[in-house]
Amino acid sequence: MAVDVVRVALVGQGYVATIFAWGLCKLKKGEIEPWGVPLADVDFGVPVEDLEIAGSVDVDERKVGKSLREVAPMYGLSPEPELGEVVVAPGLKLRSTPGFIRTKALDDSKPLADAYGAFEEWLDDVKPDVVVDVTSTVASSPLYSWREVEEKAYRGDLPHSQVYAFLVLRHGRSSYVNLQPAYVACSPAFVEKARENGLLVLGDDGATGATPLTVDLAEHLKERNRRVLSIAQFNIGGNTDFLALTEPERNLAKENTKSGFLKDILGYEPPHFIRPTGYLEPLGDKKFVSMHVQWVSFGGFTDELVVNMRINDSPALAGYIVDLARLAYALAKAGLRGTVPEVNRFYMKRPGPLDARHTSKIQAYREMLGLLEEKLGARLRAKPLSA
Amino acid sequence: MAVDVVRVALVGQGYVATIFAWGLCKLKKGEIEPWGVPLADVDFGVPVEDLEIAGSVDVDERKVGKSLREVAPMYGLSPEPELGEVVVAPGLKLRSTPGFIRTKALDDSKPLADAYGAFEEWLDDVKPDVVVDVTSTVASSPLYSWREVEEKAYRGDLPHSQVYAFLVLRHGRSSYVNLQPAYVACSPAFVEKARENGLLVLGDDGATGATPLTVDLAEHLKERNRRVLSIAQFNIGGNTDFLALTEPERNLAKENTKSGFLKDILGYEPPHFIRPTGYLEPLGDKKFVSMHVQWVSFGGFTDELVVNMRINDSPALAGYIVDLARLAYALAKAGLRGTVPEVNRFYMKRPGPLDARHTSKIQAYREMLGLLEEKLGARLRAKPLSA
Amino acid sequence: MAVDVVRVALVGQGYVATIFAWGLCKLKKGEIEPWGVPLADVDFGVPVEDLEIAGSVDVDERKVGKSLREVAPMYGLSPEPELGEVVVAPGLKLRSTPGFIRTKALDDSKPLADAYGAFEEWLDDVKPDVVVDVTSTVASSPLYSWREVEEKAYRGDLPHSQVYAFLVLRHGRSSYVNLQPAYVACSPAFVEKARENGLLVLGDDGATGATPLTVDLAEHLKERNRRVLSIAQFNIGGNTDFLALTEPERNLAKENTKSGFLKDILGYEPPHFIRPTGYLEPLGDKKFVSMHVQWVSFGGFTDELVVNMRINDSPALAGYIVDLARLAYALAKAGLRGTVPEVNRFYMKRPGPLDARHTSKIQAYREMLGLLEEKLGARLRAKPLSA
Amino acid sequence: MAVDVVRVALVGQGYVATIFAWGLCKLKKGEIEPWGVPLADVDFGVPVEDLEIAGSVDVDERKVGKSLREVAPMYGLSPEPELGEVVVAPGLKLRSTPGFIRTKALDDSKPLADAYGAFEEWLDDVKPDVVVDVTSTVASSPLYSWREVEEKAYRGDLPHSQVYAFLVLRHGRSSYVNLQPAYVACSPAFVEKARENGLLVLGDDGATGATPLTVDLAEHLKERNRRVLSIAQFNIGGNTDFLALTEPERNLAKENTKSGFLKDILGYEPPHFIRPTGYLEPLGDKKFVSMHVQWVSFGGFTDELVVNMRINDSPALAGYIVDLARLAYALAKAGLRGTVPEVNRFYMKRPGPLDARHTSKIQAYREMLGLLEEKLGARLRAKPLSA
Repeated sequence: MAVDVVRVALVGQGYVATIFAWGLCKLKKGEIEPWGVPLADVDFGVPVEDLEIAGSVDVDERKVGKSLREVAPMYGLSPEPELGEVVVAPGLKLRSTPGFIRTKALDDSKPLADAYGAFEEWLDDVKPDVVVDVTSTVASSPLYSWREVEEKAYRGDLPHSQVYAFLVLRHGRSSYVNLQPAYVACSPAFVEKARENGLLVLGDDGATGATPLTVDLAEHLKERNRRVLSIAQFNIGGNTDFLALTEPERNLAKENTKSGFLKDILGYEPPHFIRPTGYLEPLGDKKFVSMHVQWVSFGGFTDELVVNMRINDSPALAGYIVDLARLAYALAKAGLRGTVPEVNRFYMKRPGPLDARHTSKIQAYREMLGLLEEKLGARLRAKPLSA
Repeated sequence: MAVDVVRVALVGQGYVATIFAWGLCKLKKGEIEPWGVPLADVDFGVPVEDLEIAGSVDVDERKVGKSLREVAPMYGLSPEPELGEVVVAPGLKLRSTPGFIRTKALDDSKPLADAYGAFEEWLDDVKPDVVVDVTSTVASSPLYSWREVEEKAYRGDLPHSQVYAFLVLRHGRSSYVNLQPAYVACSPAFVEKARENGLLVLGDDGATGATPLTVDLAEHLKERNRRVLSIAQFNIGGNTDFLALTEPERNLAKENTKSGFLKDILGYEPPHFIRPTGYLEPLGDKKFVSMHVQWVSFGGFTDELVVNMRINDSPALAGYIVDLARLAYALAKAGLRGTVPEVNRFYMKRPGPLDARHTSKIQAYREMLGLLEEKLGARLRAKPLSA
Repeated sequence: MAVDVVRVALVGQGYVATIFAWGLCKLKKGEIEPWGVPLADVDFGVPVEDLEIAGSVDVDERKVGKSLREVAPMYGLSPEPELGEVVVAPGLKLRSTPGFIRTKALDDSKPLADAYGAFEEWLDDVKPDVVVDVTSTVASSPLYSWREVEEKAYRGDLPHSQVYAFLVLRHGRSSYVNLQPAYVACSPAFVEKARENGLLVLGDDGATGATPLTVDLAEHLKERNRRVLSIAQFNIGGNTDFLALTEPERNLAKENTKSGFLKDILGYEPPHFIRPTGYLEPLGDKKFVSMHVQWVSFGGFTDELVVNMRINDSPALAGYIVDLARLAYALAKAGLRGTVPEVNRFYMKRPGPLDARHTSKIQAYREMLGLLEEKLGARLRAKPLSA
Repeated sequence: MAVDVVRVALVGQGYVATIFAWGLCKLKKGEIEPWGVPLADVDFGVPVEDLEIAGSVDVDERKVGKSLREVAPMYGLSPEPELGEVVVAPGLKLRSTPGFIRTKALDDSKPLADAYGAFEEWLDDVKPDVVVDVTSTVASSPLYSWREVEEKAYRGDLPHSQVYAFLVLRHGRSSYVNLQPAYVACSPAFVEKARENGLLVLGDDGATGATPLTVDLAEHLKERNRRVLSIAQFNIGGNTDFLALTEPERNLAKENTKSGFLKDILGYEPPHFIRPTGYLEPLGDKKFVSMHVQWVSFGGFTDELVVNMRINDSPALAGYIVDLARLAYALAKAGLRGTVPEVNRFYMKRPGPLDARHTSKIQAYREMLGLLEEKLGARLRAKPLSA
């Protein structure tokens, strides 16, 4: 039944992108179940089988020039033959790539304008329907006008994520999914440009672990009118993203997307300490999360909740890409333009557009299904969505 | 603005009923905030100030004949003067009252029929609009016909909770809120009788602690299509309810209402061990909960979640009574009859009527607000509900 | 340098015995590190290389007649060729083998006396220096006289563990290590018989997980004079031992060895709930433990501690066998007779002899090292023990 | 039987010092039990009743000039009349007092030399036998010669803790107990000066919460030869000490005393992240600790342990002062000079003298009792220590 092919380009061929490519390959061959793909049971017209990895860029010299089949074993994944068709092209390092990465990038020796041109040639070549940013966390600010975007981009004042968004949207033929904390779907300039070009920008910062759980927990407490006294949340892991977060500026950027929901959900902002906390190599990609919440119950009594998790960070986000690439394609094709808060609110830590209100994730899920029913005629494979 | 008075009778003057009475008193005097009252900010026509404790029954010889002002200090609560007006009347012990309670009950020496008559005289006297059952956990079965109810009640084959529901509904002037695990709102015979008499039965088993959180957690996982491998949940506390649960039959009754939601939420029933586990006196009313959940994420990776809580058991349920007494009254007055699944699904572990489908609590909350808007013109005090 | 060979016979070829045999094989080949072997760095004259699996018995029809090489893959372990030399012989089921095991046992059809004779023939054949009991938990009572042992054994009134101990000690050529909760090293009759025959009985019930940690935690609190208010401890797992513990009598036997230390360590017995709690198959051999402890600190303030663990149950015990088989052999050879409380106190939940006082495990370790220095001239491989 | 009076001066009248003074007062009146006083049951010749608060200094303008009776209610403690006799004198702020404190200090307007002189006058007046430093955490370095101490002290290059130690030891009539992370008992210059003057310096940094528990946990794992892969430990609280630790330099000073034991106990230093992590006001003095440890067990299997605690920080340390003031006095009187590693190893995070080896706390406790038996004829009140 799959008549379309959705061409996906990956920006940042780290563990997330690699497990996405590997898992997609295994899914298409029926070798794994689609666990961790939220909409696996919802038919909205673009089955998983339609997805195709069209290209990949990275700036790590150990990966550039290698096929994904060669990259997979770097992450302990099996070298599926189909992955041999995609080769990692050099990307843009700018000033925002973490210092611990030895780079091989378009802007290693070329002037920025030439490097940008080379990236656009890669876009011409790869022809992605959807570009997905899964690079390392960078600090950034919202961008309000396209002129500001252009000027800063050429002065080298934008971090890599915003430069990729700039180049892709100016190129004008791909929707864009931003899964890291940079302001992309929350930059009015990018959303407006996407709207002009009939495209979509989804983002920012995929919400897979403790944050979305905390959102739903906060809603759970709010609905019982329990007064939250404080929230402490620690995250520690051993993957590259945690290593990058040891740089204070990146850490702050991440912290901001992790606690922005409190006011919207609770109606007030309780004292909180919610942060990526540290890097501890032996934890690997399976981060350790610890959270303490205390609140006032009826009669003034104080209750306490502690949550501890071991979460595979990258697979959870990779599962979201399976949906987001399909949704960006399908919803743009159905005529939506700019961004789609109903989708962002479910999948993202800081849902675009800028200053979109947070809702609980459980509520966001219902609202997203409503949108998919209306715009795409979505239905649950086995039973109607409304059941 | 309060024009109505809602007369509430409490069956089982334990810690829950006592903290409810005490807290209501403090709320009316403005001495505490309404934390833990879910609908405190929703105006549905019956403000908290309208509630009035009209009567109380118990079978514990240390309480019968005492005023609530005298009972409050037994639970470490201040003896508010207003509580002096309500005196605990003797109730029905039947065969289901826990053996560790020394009783002073209507059926201590009288034949059952006489004891039942005495209870009805008490109802005549107290004239409750709503009767709330907060007695100890009993084992029971659903009752399908009124004839069955009557026969078993007079043979002494029903546990106290079902006998109270029988007598109150036959009396025909009070709605009934059942907050313990007995089948009341899940007994078709009771719901049908309430319908005939223009009354409501809400129940069964108030969902305040780990269970509703687990429901929302299960929904959270389901929406991400994470495959739950197992759930273990332990509960241990030092209050009378945990003491009663050391009797295996009661424990089983409780276990059943604690895990019934899994199939409805997840679509399958994962292996689980979800139980009230033990009695440990020094924990007091602040139970300790420990929960372990593991699931499969994208690509076949296994994640783990551990939740530990210290929860004040009785205050949480007392806060619900502030809503449920008002809702039972307001919705019956608005013409609803039998039971109200939209309310039960939010507040209860096993929402009536029998075999009502579970939904997530967050979803149930939205649906309940919708009903309250439609039937009672409810609105959030500060801002519209739809915001 | 290894001049001795220590012949070890395994009674109960479950996961513990199998991972012991497999791990010993890998250790001898230098393929794994000796992690989890407490005395790996202590030279007391019997290196790990001296250990040899001489025989194995079980009553599970799926294992009897199979070599350990065939058994290993049943537990997900690699079929090391060296394991092919040991074949599982049929053992004694008696009335204490869990009902869920389909048996192939010496007493399936023979009278008890004949079955016992057959087991002694197996002992003649295998000639073990040390017999290690790692069968399933059974309920039992201490045995005070050899006459009582004999009478009950022939009437079929002893559980399998005590019958094995009876037959091995009567046979008189093997020391005995009991790693399950039956009263063996805590039965005066067995210790006395071992003494007469110049042998040792070590036991009872290997202390590998939450219990020894709780012992040291209790000591830690005691040394600061913190007053323990309560201890709750839950254990849930998915291996055969947890399945066996779903039978209440076995559960109680286990519970008793899990909390016996409190009075000895703390000087008083705080309210506690310490139990193997349930069976949950997907947890497998990696049990989940949750523990809550609260105490009074200076000035009357209450502190709280929660411990959650995922522990591989069987490997931890298997690592102990590597020591205990060597110690039983070496200490008997050095002239010790009966039992050795200094060893039992470190390795066991209920250290023999009967009513031996518990000490903290950290203290027990020091005292055991002192004994090994004195009796066996033990020294740390790299540096002197006293450092 | 108490013939001595031990005059104690408190430096830093924060929560620790205040709860110590308050609790001592309640202990003497028999109104509380000595929970949290490690040696409460050990008779070493100086009963608790002998302790007397002789003086107090602080630099907080809200406290200077107030009696301890007035200070107690600032921390929610009852204003015991006996506390009225001690008035807080102004101390030395130097450059190391946290910026958030509005000071009233001897060096607010005077030159340093004059301020130091004024402090010595206070010592002349108060005549303490023991001075206890419970000021806020400061960063510092070990001091090797008395000349270095003098020069830096007069240049204003020493943090307040080292200046107090300098002045007290030069004054030459009081032993010194340092309960914060500054190098005092770990500064050879201070230990040597104490030795010359027949005094003792005990320190550094009282070990009351997660650190000593982690030490014993590490020993527990080491004795089973489990290979620790990683340790993560977070601490968050809402008291002044946590607020002070938000300054990075102080945080680092604390971090160093929290993880120094790993190499000594384990024999290697596993990757770890052990830190005071943040300030969260609503947690108050009852900090939240979360710790994750993973290790390799027999056969290469990985186990995991999570510890979560709510610990009243200040009371735990206050209980130690009850011992340390008595020990400093009694051991100096018994002829010990310089410092006492057997005492420091039990009570301190970084036991003096500099580079003293860490042992497990349980072992340290035994060794301390041995010393007290030998030097002070100590015995357990109820039963002999050797029992």
